[in-house]
Amino acid sequence: MVVVMKRGFTAQELDGVKQQMEAGGVKVMVSHGQDTTILGAEGNAAAVDMEKISLMPGVERIMRVTEPYKKANRKYHPDNSLVPVGNAVLGGKKLGIIAGPCSVESHEQILEVARSVQSSGACALRGGAYKPRSSPYSFQGLEKEGIHMLQEAREKTGLPIVTEIMSTDNVEMFEMCVDVIQVGARNMQNFDLLKQLGKTSKPILLKRGMSSTIEEWLMSAEYIMAGGNENVILCERGIRTFETFTRNTLDLSAIPAVKSLSHLPVLVDPSHSTGRAWMVESMAIAAIAAGADGLLIEVHNDPPNALCDGAQSITPDQFQALMEKLKAMAALVGREL
Amino acid sequence: MVVVMKRGFTAQELDGVKQQMEAGGVKVMVSHGQDTTILGAEGNAAAVDMEKISLMPGVERIMRVTEPYKKANRKYHPDNSLVPVGNAVLGGKKLGIIAGPCSVESHEQILEVARSVQSSGACALRGGAYKPRSSPYSFQGLEKEGIHMLQEAREKTGLPIVTEIMSTDNVEMFEMCVDVIQVGARNMQNFDLLKQLGKTSKPILLKRGMSSTIEEWLMSAEYIMAGGNENVILCERGIRTFETFTRNTLDLSAIPAVKSLSHLPVLVDPSHSTGRAWMVESMAIAAIAAGADGLLIEVHNDPPNALCDGAQSITPDQFQALMEKLKAMAALVGREL
Amino acid sequence: MVVVMKRGFTAQELDGVKQQMEAGGVKVMVSHGQDTTILGAEGNAAAVDMEKISLMPGVERIMRVTEPYKKANRKYHPDNSLVPVGNAVLGGKKLGIIAGPCSVESHEQILEVARSVQSSGACALRGGAYKPRSSPYSFQGLEKEGIHMLQEAREKTGLPIVTEIMSTDNVEMFEMCVDVIQVGARNMQNFDLLKQLGKTSKPILLKRGMSSTIEEWLMSAEYIMAGGNENVILCERGIRTFETFTRNTLDLSAIPAVKSLSHLPVLVDPSHSTGRAWMVESMAIAAIAAGADGLLIEVHNDPPNALCDGAQSITPDQFQALMEKLKAMAALVGREL
Amino acid sequence: MVVVMKRGFTAQELDGVKQQMEAGGVKVMVSHGQDTTILGAEGNAAAVDMEKISLMPGVERIMRVTEPYKKANRKYHPDNSLVPVGNAVLGGKKLGIIAGPCSVESHEQILEVARSVQSSGACALRGGAYKPRSSPYSFQGLEKEGIHMLQEAREKTGLPIVTEIMSTDNVEMFEMCVDVIQVGARNMQNFDLLKQLGKTSKPILLKRGMSSTIEEWLMSAEYIMAGGNENVILCERGIRTFETFTRNTLDLSAIPAVKSLSHLPVLVDPSHSTGRAWMVESMAIAAIAAGADGLLIEVHNDPPNALCDGAQSITPDQFQALMEKLKAMAALVGREL
Repeated sequence: MVVVMKRGFTAQELDGVKQQMEAGGVKVMVSHGQDTTILGAEGNAAAVDMEKISLMPGVERIMRVTEPYKKANRKYHPDNSLVPVGNAVLGGKKLGIIAGPCSVESHEQILEVARSVQSSGACALRGGAYKPRSSPYSFQGLEKEGIHMLQEAREKTGLPIVTEIMSTDNVEMFEMCVDVIQVGARNMQNFDLLKQLGKTSKPILLKRGMSSTIEEWLMSAEYIMAGGNENVILCERGIRTFETFTRNTLDLSAIPAVKSLSHLPVLVDPSHSTGRAWMVESMAIAAIAAGADGLLIEVHNDPPNALCDGAQSITPDQFQALMEKLKAMAALVGREL
Repeated sequence: MVVVMKRGFTAQELDGVKQQMEAGGVKVMVSHGQDTTILGAEGNAAAVDMEKISLMPGVERIMRVTEPYKKANRKYHPDNSLVPVGNAVLGGKKLGIIAGPCSVESHEQILEVARSVQSSGACALRGGAYKPRSSPYSFQGLEKEGIHMLQEAREKTGLPIVTEIMSTDNVEMFEMCVDVIQVGARNMQNFDLLKQLGKTSKPILLKRGMSSTIEEWLMSAEYIMAGGNENVILCERGIRTFETFTRNTLDLSAIPAVKSLSHLPVLVDPSHSTGRAWMVESMAIAAIAAGADGLLIEVHNDPPNALCDGAQSITPDQFQALMEKLKAMAALVGREL
Repeated sequence: MVVVMKRGFTAQELDGVKQQMEAGGVKVMVSHGQDTTILGAEGNAAAVDMEKISLMPGVERIMRVTEPYKKANRKYHPDNSLVPVGNAVLGGKKLGIIAGPCSVESHEQILEVARSVQSSGACALRGGAYKPRSSPYSFQGLEKEGIHMLQEAREKTGLPIVTEIMSTDNVEMFEMCVDVIQVGARNMQNFDLLKQLGKTSKPILLKRGMSSTIEEWLMSAEYIMAGGNENVILCERGIRTFETFTRNTLDLSAIPAVKSLSHLPVLVDPSHSTGRAWMVESMAIAAIAAGADGLLIEVHNDPPNALCDGAQSITPDQFQALMEKLKAMAALVGREL
Repeated sequence: MVVVMKRGFTAQELDGVKQQMEAGGVKVMVSHGQDTTILGAEGNAAAVDMEKISLMPGVERIMRVTEPYKKANRKYHPDNSLVPVGNAVLGGKKLGIIAGPCSVESHEQILEVARSVQSSGACALRGGAYKPRSSPYSFQGLEKEGIHMLQEAREKTGLPIVTEIMSTDNVEMFEMCVDVIQVGARNMQNFDLLKQLGKTSKPILLKRGMSSTIEEWLMSAEYIMAGGNENVILCERGIRTFETFTRNTLDLSAIPAVKSLSHLPVLVDPSHSTGRAWMVESMAIAAIAAGADGLLIEVHNDPPNALCDGAQSITPDQFQALMEKLKAMAALVGREL
């Protein structure tokens, strides 16, 4: 931690800051520059009250020099975390491709899609039962019935199921029924939900918030891990920028960034980020090129008649063709599929 | 609704689109431009499946020409909504100033602040009991105990209390205990929460999400109103941009924008938006100049020792001085305080 | 300046950094934290090569603790700068309102607008002769002829003229012909232009770039001032964000921010920022409330037939009414008009 | 073009709009919806004054349905443009890799880098002689002398040279001396410069502005092409967003977007976008995966001692290794290197 004093600070003010820092258990080094005097903390600064110091007279600003996340930090956990998803493992050499429709629509639909993505090599089935829709007048998902259809598809195919949770009301039911619990972008800072998920035993797929920095994203992972559940899978799904041609702006440079900062596996969702089915292939391949540990892809057996997000869903045939390209891409970056 | 056809569309494709639109119950007008052919819907287009049409062969794009929100729309409700907050009313000629600490910290603290903001003319007391903190290691609020302290302060001062809800688990308790239920920026699209709040009888103070468009904000209000609770108060609290000098970028032009689009009252929070106490006064006055119906201001009896957000809290004396200026400002724009 | 070392740095790496800092003429203080070791510079760090140090082995990051701008910095120039514009002065107690059409269109038009804004109390006339248009097929301004029309209007009214320069080719001509040379948002980092304007004797009105931070904006002012021309007037005109209801997002909190960081006068352009004439009044009043030293407002005698930006131009009558309100607003914040 | 009327418009207002549209030479179709009446233009709407109509009484809004760029538009030029760069061609099957230092620093440096990137397979040499630096106190480039060093390197290696122009003052000299004239992000909307470059005979490498939409970028290409120079090469270099871990946010989904909208070749600059040398490899490979026609990469023989942007420069050895990977990547997406 570094404290920068204002020009014209008094000796008394400097003393005050020094004492407050020392009260937090650190030794303080003072360094007098020409225009600037700074104080550095020596020792563990965790117990120093940074906000209080920032408000003390004579203080210009205070800067943290270490990351605020610990359990998610690669510094304290240099090896990649390996998160089990059914029989697959995310974060290792083998890529994990999770595929399925935006929404579960019927027994037949989810089973048909499950079988086709399985035969193409997907490691898990995704499908929304509870849907976050910006309009209250849009289709809101089949809810509990949708979960049952997913379970049925799992029973018949053996594919683990991944689906989004939207409320703390459903934590218990999700823990019982699904294999990976997805937290959507809109709930990335729903801290009550994160805390409760931290007490479950199921892996959590944590999407990046639409306007969340990488640090905030890792802090949300930290919430889950601090509760005891260290099986967190991150998923980049595009951020909000001024550009409107694509639904969101896929931030692929976040992949090497997060891989350097954290040991957690990172997936990319090329469907939601672009919002356009014809862009999914190029962004999926680029994501693997950028170092992603896997993908979350929307596949629908009949996109023009999908109840939700048909515009960004690819067909089973397109998915099959994409998987072939991804195999070659994986090899090129030293991965497997 | 307007559909634009791709260059080189076929007569059959045009027919398909026309039929799909007509299936939604509208009459269709076709207009052939030089480069572009467009179809316009005549009649109520609500039942037309826009997403499906957007995916039909030959379609370049489809544009909505009406707002997707109805109950929040000023077109269908030209007069300002008046929302009761204790004995005050938000949305009328009289401005409403809601003030109090970021967090409830103790019986003494909340009562002292309540008394001082009341004597300066605040119409309600704010104070956080459940706190959304980006770090799991930060103070998370006094929770239920904090609600009790707020109730006690209300009992002794008569001021209605405003506090943030973070989970559907607490809807019932909040409805029973508080006067205005606040939904924070991070939960603006927590749709399950919005749905449940739509069934309560208490006014909802809905903060704008950090990266939410004005339309998305009004759609979240629509979620609450569609559930039956039309007492929604909007609150602009700054949006996330590339500028980092301020905590967020206060979007004051959103005030006249929302006032033209919707009949709901709009407040401004100059504390969270700037993150700096010395900016609160100028932004508070500017907000009233811009047409806001009131303000949400953080006031703390001892900012340097606040448990949360001291850097953006003003003191009771500063609040008192600000209220004097706001009175003059209110008169200048034809309002009262 | 503060250098943070990587975990696991070697004594040799630390020495290397220390020596490189000392080579820049500073004394170095080393402070060993639990997870972190930091080096602070004592003395004038201007000659230390920060980028080189950031690349040295063992270095995690390097942080500047002082602003990179000197001449524009209020720390070294605590009093407000006063910039003369004709007989008026910007930056003092009296506000300066600069008004006129987006584009100069004809002798009659510019003279008519000049006379009306003068009678309402404007201190200078604005009008574009060279226009930055996003399409090459749009009206590009009357160019040299437009400058002559502005000169003529000045001759007949006495109002100083403010107009935008778009190329270094015109610096000499502008210095000769106009009173205040405006640099538009798109040219805020056209450094060659800034350098050449730094050698002229005319005040420069420097608009903030669409996606420029406050620091970059002040650095562009520094370019002009470093060349010898200290008469720089800043102008906030809205930044680009994800919100599209308004043309740009007016950043009014930038006003108190810049006034605290710099001694230069700051204007606000409520016309370009909102892009909507009906929003100009509320944003103009709010800007003065926020502490602006004046305004730049588009006034057109016939907005529906303007050759450019009619949608954001107010009429002379609306301008007259606005000036009355601004007088009251000025008084409220201790200013004059 | 589509005009949407306000609720409650009068027959006279509708007539006025219709006549104004017809005055632009189009036939008008009126379609009456339940809440909305719209007018569609039949025929070539180029001569219709959209801004004027947007201001007419009774008009709610006006929407363009065709792109504003013509020469850059793939609709009117379905085949890829092939732009010659020395003996290479950009936009065809073969990828073009342009490499070299951020700044030309000396005869030896530029020649050494030129020879090494040539032997690794680069098709052109980049190097800055005129540098846009945010601080007037930073190294500004060797200017004319730097151009001479580039020419010398070309003479000795045969590599065509690419360098950035910053002012209209230098158009003639650049046209004479360099092979590809680069327009930097900060000058993407320096329209005077674009116009003058439109009259030269050299290919223009047009970087995307930091906060420019894809449409604005293509409009800037249109400026150059409208002047007669159709050899425009686009270059994505990251956009400004709220995320600050990377210098900018590389927008790789812009690649398939632009390739679908325009026939012009598109490069990616993984160095400026990330600002970090260790991210260059993954983003370079991802860019080719995304469909880019080539790359612009910063290579320096001694990054820790570079006069500019050493943090984002890779070494000749790293470049050599990258080229090997790019060859494999190219094959995977059906391209060559």
